[in-house]
Amino acid sequence: MKNTIALPSKTVERLSQYRRNLLSCVASGKTHIFSHEIAALLHITPVQVRRDIMLIGYSGTLRKGYDVQELIDLIGDIIDSENGQNVAVVGAGNLGRAIISYFKGKRSKLLIVGAFDTNPEKVDKVFAGVQCYHFDKLEEIIEKENISIVILTVPPTEAVKVTEHLVNTGIKGILNFTTAPLNVSEDVFLEEYDMITSLEKVAYFVKKNEK
Amino acid sequence: MKNTIALPSKTVERLSQYRRNLLSCVASGKTHIFSHEIAALLHITPVQVRRDIMLIGYSGTLRKGYDVQELIDLIGDIIDSENGQNVAVVGAGNLGRAIISYFKGKRSKLLIVGAFDTNPEKVDKVFAGVQCYHFDKLEEIIEKENISIVILTVPPTEAVKVTEHLVNTGIKGILNFTTAPLNVSEDVFLEEYDMITSLEKVAYFVKKNEK
Repeated sequence: MKNTIALPSKTVERLSQYRRNLLSCVASGKTHIFSHEIAALLHITPVQVRRDIMLIGYSGTLRKGYDVQELIDLIGDIIDSENGQNVAVVGAGNLGRAIISYFKGKRSKLLIVGAFDTNPEKVDKVFAGVQCYHFDKLEEIIEKENISIVILTVPPTEAVKVTEHLVNTGIKGILNFTTAPLNVSEDVFLEEYDMITSLEKVAYFVKKNEK
Repeated sequence: MKNTIALPSKTVERLSQYRRNLLSCVASGKTHIFSHEIAALLHITPVQVRRDIMLIGYSGTLRKGYDVQELIDLIGDIIDSENGQNVAVVGAGNLGRAIISYFKGKRSKLLIVGAFDTNPEKVDKVFAGVQCYHFDKLEEIIEKENISIVILTVPPTEAVKVTEHLVNTGIKGILNFTTAPLNVSEDVFLEEYDMITSLEKVAYFVKKNEK
């Protein structure tokens, strides 16, 4: 079963996390898994896991649980794009380059195919197999490499201007690592990746637990 | 009003995001803000914003909205620790070093005071003002610098072992940047920071929007 209506954003997040954990299961030779095992890995309820997996039209057996590989493939059918999607990292500073290394070889349907910067020390270099181009070539390369998604790691002062340019060039999804609040039109999907918020959350609960 | 019961995790996340946006307002000279303006910046409903801010015991005026600085201070009282909290980055590779630069000077109550690695090229170096120590000194430095929170950026193969060690040393909060699933006892707060999931979410909605 393929859904044609978009799943809720939180469901997509959990499906991605299920797959990540299922891939570790495969690596360790585990062929079947129960909903309560997946739930424990993700610190959520087994009911939530069963509901999500039912929603994508799959069910396990009572005795053996879910078939790990079948579930991985099905999640792939749902969240991946059949022919893959190409991604660019815009801003090849420390963070941009760390992200390029981090993603290398992690997902076959989601490939980082280029990086962009203005710094002459970065331009025309290759980072973890990814070519860095000058900003001037943005339009040309985005079209040539069929890039629809951008990971934004430019300095926050540049973020708004660069984003406008990216959207004009036809980019349809942005993962924003900068601290700048961005506004995009409705046909562009924007996801904020805010490290400070994550760290503040940890700090808050550490403080609360101390009391 | 100070809450003694911990707020829900999602509320803490939003309060942190409100503050981040309010700080940009201050920087641009804005002194008052309406709930619908905050809501628009965060792509949530004004009702949600008003509910969260009421929950922390604050209200604005109908005519001028919230006082930006007062609200920043109040959120600080709620989520920050009075005397600040010290943080270590464990694993000083590309990602660890990028995170150190990223956080530099961002929050006064949340300081990265040290990094740890085993690589002789990293140990005893200083990255963006942060000293890198050898893993062997973990216990000594955590105690000396009163570190309660760790940002984990070691290779995934090391993550489980290192986490056990950190928890034994008395670390109370971990922001996990590795792809390894971790298990910690209930008194340790673990937050997963999964870039792949964020990117897969963007990719999914880009795919859906194309149809």
